[in-house]
Amino acid sequence: MSRPSEFDLIRDCFSSGYPAANDLLLGIGDDCSLIRPPADMELAQSIDTQVAGVHFPTDAPGNLIASRALRCAVSDLAAMGAVPQGFHLALTLSDNNEDFLQDFASGLRLTANTLGIPLLGGDTTYGKQLTISVAVQGWLPRGLGLRRDAARAGQDVWLTGKVGAAALVLDDILRDPTRDDQETAPYYHPRVHLSFGHLLLSLATSAIDISDGLIQDARHIANASGVILNLDATAIPTSVSPEHSRWRECLTGGDDYQLLFTAPQSARERIEACALTAGLNHCARIGHVEEGEPDVCVRKNGELLTFEQEGYTHFNR
Amino acid sequence: MSRPSEFDLIRDCFSSGYPAANDLLLGIGDDCSLIRPPADMELAQSIDTQVAGVHFPTDAPGNLIASRALRCAVSDLAAMGAVPQGFHLALTLSDNNEDFLQDFASGLRLTANTLGIPLLGGDTTYGKQLTISVAVQGWLPRGLGLRRDAARAGQDVWLTGKVGAAALVLDDILRDPTRDDQETAPYYHPRVHLSFGHLLLSLATSAIDISDGLIQDARHIANASGVILNLDATAIPTSVSPEHSRWRECLTGGDDYQLLFTAPQSARERIEACALTAGLNHCARIGHVEEGEPDVCVRKNGELLTFEQEGYTHFNR
Repeated sequence: MSRPSEFDLIRDCFSSGYPAANDLLLGIGDDCSLIRPPADMELAQSIDTQVAGVHFPTDAPGNLIASRALRCAVSDLAAMGAVPQGFHLALTLSDNNEDFLQDFASGLRLTANTLGIPLLGGDTTYGKQLTISVAVQGWLPRGLGLRRDAARAGQDVWLTGKVGAAALVLDDILRDPTRDDQETAPYYHPRVHLSFGHLLLSLATSAIDISDGLIQDARHIANASGVILNLDATAIPTSVSPEHSRWRECLTGGDDYQLLFTAPQSARERIEACALTAGLNHCARIGHVEEGEPDVCVRKNGELLTFEQEGYTHFNR
Repeated sequence: MSRPSEFDLIRDCFSSGYPAANDLLLGIGDDCSLIRPPADMELAQSIDTQVAGVHFPTDAPGNLIASRALRCAVSDLAAMGAVPQGFHLALTLSDNNEDFLQDFASGLRLTANTLGIPLLGGDTTYGKQLTISVAVQGWLPRGLGLRRDAARAGQDVWLTGKVGAAALVLDDILRDPTRDDQETAPYYHPRVHLSFGHLLLSLATSAIDISDGLIQDARHIANASGVILNLDATAIPTSVSPEHSRWRECLTGGDDYQLLFTAPQSARERIEACALTAGLNHCARIGHVEEGEPDVCVRKNGELLTFEQEGYTHFNR
């Protein structure tokens, strides 16, 4: 069977079926894509890589890999409160056959349409290991982006929903990577809090999406803002109850892509109203910010918890 | 030896020593980088991946790999005539040790400073094979970007300089990937025609950078513009003379990142003056554009040449 040329392959798989971009002047097929920025907006950008056998099982179906890769990348836009503008895809294929590529492309299209983010361009190469880098970008009103360095003492700490489901289902997924149901959804199709993130622009002071574990990512806000995040373990919505043997993994497991954010106490009612509007049933106030040497303290009924590993570190292979 | 954490590693290697960006509001260290677009400009963007053992020798030194990866990516901005704004780096490390990473980072910094392009953000992961994706972007005055689809019959075809040197030195590089001298420079440090590309904005009609081979890339302009590119083989500046046994490889070899562009005949004198200003000693008029079914025709003393393979196709492994 002759291999399709790079150009045919890209054209067939990636050139159509994506949402339209108002500000796109030139898409796939030239040296560069071209966009026209709207007036008075800032551009938020992030790049995110997922490697087969590291970030997802090697034999997972293409459409599920694509969903996870794009959602994890777009989540960084949600954490800034940005409205998606588009993405570029760097796809390194391994010995994946054409069927795999069609599956991948179909999952990518579906996810892009669900999240409302157009594909602007890309590069397709071959290597030993399927590797997907997604460069995402979105617009933000001037000066309103949700950074990590603006948490202040006296503010509340919030979480958009339950953590732990993605981490706890991973064993099942490793046994059967093709499982695409309600239980595996938090892993393959993590909810991206785009609209809620955007609503938070005028309410929250800082935000981060939880990709590496609640405690580890909370520490990024603590360090960047120079504050202590005091968390009440029993207030944290988790996918299993505190009595469960794997409860602690919910706090360190990552992969759910909930948003952790801080906000003034005066915003409580409006945040709850926005959460209701966005359909977040488990959005919860889980702690408060204090002055002091940057740290994250988790207490369960008054007792300080310690964790051997606070989250996922990419280099701990 | 304990492995440094991802955060320490990124901070040490990639957080400083890059050129400053006027429009950068927030760089490495948050969920997203943030830039403020200048008024009335368009944003040109491209993503480019290089895989060890595919796009460069696996045992090439880190600083040379970084130079080539960044230059190849930025060349797409030159081909649009854009002024570099910044880049995001997705780096998948293999079993590369800390020394390699320091070398890579130092080559990246040096190249970024030479090309005047700041590092805005990135993602570092581990996999089986060193893989480098570089997402570059730059500003263009409204409506002036050099696209592939605007070559018209009657116009000239130009080339910024000699092709072939990078392709012909590859055998030597495979024997000794550490060679960093004048002969290997076209491969490891291809010249990026940023200032000349920018000068072409008001002179050229279409442009492309030659990464996959002169004839194959010329075909992209022919197809996008719906024209024939007639090239005079003896007018093409090549690194060896037409009598040399490897002369034909110069036309199909790619990797030199010269710019191929079209322009009205009325622009000849201004183009020659700009080439002189930019220090291009071998910028040459190598053919003309004709009406007809899209094609690239190369004639040597009147005889039509044919090529079994017109350039590098990424999927021909």
